[in-house]
Amino acid sequence: MVRYAETDQMGVAHHSVYAVWMESARVAFLSQAGLDYAEIERLGYAFPVVSLEVAYRTAVRFSDIVRVITRLDELKSRSLGFKYRMERNGVPVSLGHTRHLVQDHSGRAARIPEALMGFLLASKVDEELML
Amino acid sequence: MVRYAETDQMGVAHHSVYAVWMESARVAFLSQAGLDYAEIERLGYAFPVVSLEVAYRTAVRFSDIVRVITRLDELKSRSLGFKYRMERNGVPVSLGHTRHLVQDHSGRAARIPEALMGFLLASKVDEELML
Amino acid sequence: MVRYAETDQMGVAHHSVYAVWMESARVAFLSQAGLDYAEIERLGYAFPVVSLEVAYRTAVRFSDIVRVITRLDELKSRSLGFKYRMERNGVPVSLGHTRHLVQDHSGRAARIPEALMGFLLASKVDEELML
Amino acid sequence: MVRYAETDQMGVAHHSVYAVWMESARVAFLSQAGLDYAEIERLGYAFPVVSLEVAYRTAVRFSDIVRVITRLDELKSRSLGFKYRMERNGVPVSLGHTRHLVQDHSGRAARIPEALMGFLLASKVDEELML
Repeated sequence: MVRYAETDQMGVAHHSVYAVWMESARVAFLSQAGLDYAEIERLGYAFPVVSLEVAYRTAVRFSDIVRVITRLDELKSRSLGFKYRMERNGVPVSLGHTRHLVQDHSGRAARIPEALMGFLLASKVDEELML
Repeated sequence: MVRYAETDQMGVAHHSVYAVWMESARVAFLSQAGLDYAEIERLGYAFPVVSLEVAYRTAVRFSDIVRVITRLDELKSRSLGFKYRMERNGVPVSLGHTRHLVQDHSGRAARIPEALMGFLLASKVDEELML
Repeated sequence: MVRYAETDQMGVAHHSVYAVWMESARVAFLSQAGLDYAEIERLGYAFPVVSLEVAYRTAVRFSDIVRVITRLDELKSRSLGFKYRMERNGVPVSLGHTRHLVQDHSGRAARIPEALMGFLLASKVDEELML
Repeated sequence: MVRYAETDQMGVAHHSVYAVWMESARVAFLSQAGLDYAEIERLGYAFPVVSLEVAYRTAVRFSDIVRVITRLDELKSRSLGFKYRMERNGVPVSLGHTRHLVQDHSGRAARIPEALMGFLLASKVDEELML
């Protein structure tokens, strides 16, 4: 449900909030794939965002239920990408895309560890998150 | 100065915050061009964001001074676009782009009013905002 | 679930976010009482926050499930107050309180309309929201 | 300057944002006292917020200039407190208060190190931050 704090004085959800929703949806995607992002970070890895794209088609408003459908659309040895489709009542309102590098304990770019790669390879399906 | 609240547990400014910085820089750009965005809205117009792109090169951290250089890079009768270059100590850390439609009192897409267009046409220079 | 974007570089949910959670919990409270806050605003009323208090006992972290228990603890003709207890795994982590004025179409302080008052009087029970 | 992203659909700065402004003002207060909060954290210390209070008198709006005057109003061996007065055009719009514990490398409550205490004792004056 779109939070009141997420609205702006135009009376709609502020455009910066979509990146936060996409992040929550990505975490849910990884979770259904068997990857707990909190655990990934405890293991010393991170998937920092290197690019973000959002196309806004229809504004959403306070208390709207937004569904985010997430798909892994790129999986390389050192990077990954996700596509997001945001819907309200089954109607697309926004499309998003993020690309991520893989970072290891040293903070430097790294290969995705084998164990994680296995989960990601097995996960290429849509995952939904209701906000 | 990057705010503490803008950091996340990776120890860097969260990627969603860049859209907020770009917005502040855009408002500053319009202001130097003679266009007070608060006044534009009081006149019944708005420039809602229809697309957002951000490329993250180097992370920025709490208390870093970020400079945003904004350029109007598209100006049509019904839409406009801005490019943003974010720097720390003169070194680019991120690039951004936004496209905007023009909306009138009715909330529908509209032509940019002549008066505003004049200011925008006269403004095609870089404008800086220190955060 | 605590969002990644809600964390700060201390590795915990930033203290400002609790006000947002309390707001979502308040909206849920009003909703179970039969009051849709979006509808209240469409009718020209609003309950702006005039005071906020939060006591932080234990930090919460990314991906923690936070439960907010909300109680209406003050109901006057022109103001209302809510208490909030935030819990993780049944253990209290934070307490909050907000007071609100009632505002009418003109933006001025007003009496709570009879119709809304009826719902509020009938609602004095705890309501839970899972974040 | 109040950011557009900081407004909500009531057309005013959202009440949760004041905690962020107070934090920035606190960082500025510490800075003028000779204490760089980023450096304090690098030394292994932190001043987590244990309580927050905000009283909202007059709403502020997009593009308003808000001045935050910060005072250290409590200084014990293991905790400290700050008072904040937010003004617009010299008129108070909000008052705030935060209390903080001192945390050391282990994440446990600690005494304020002598070196920091010296700076804090010498700093009991108002400090202003323009937002």
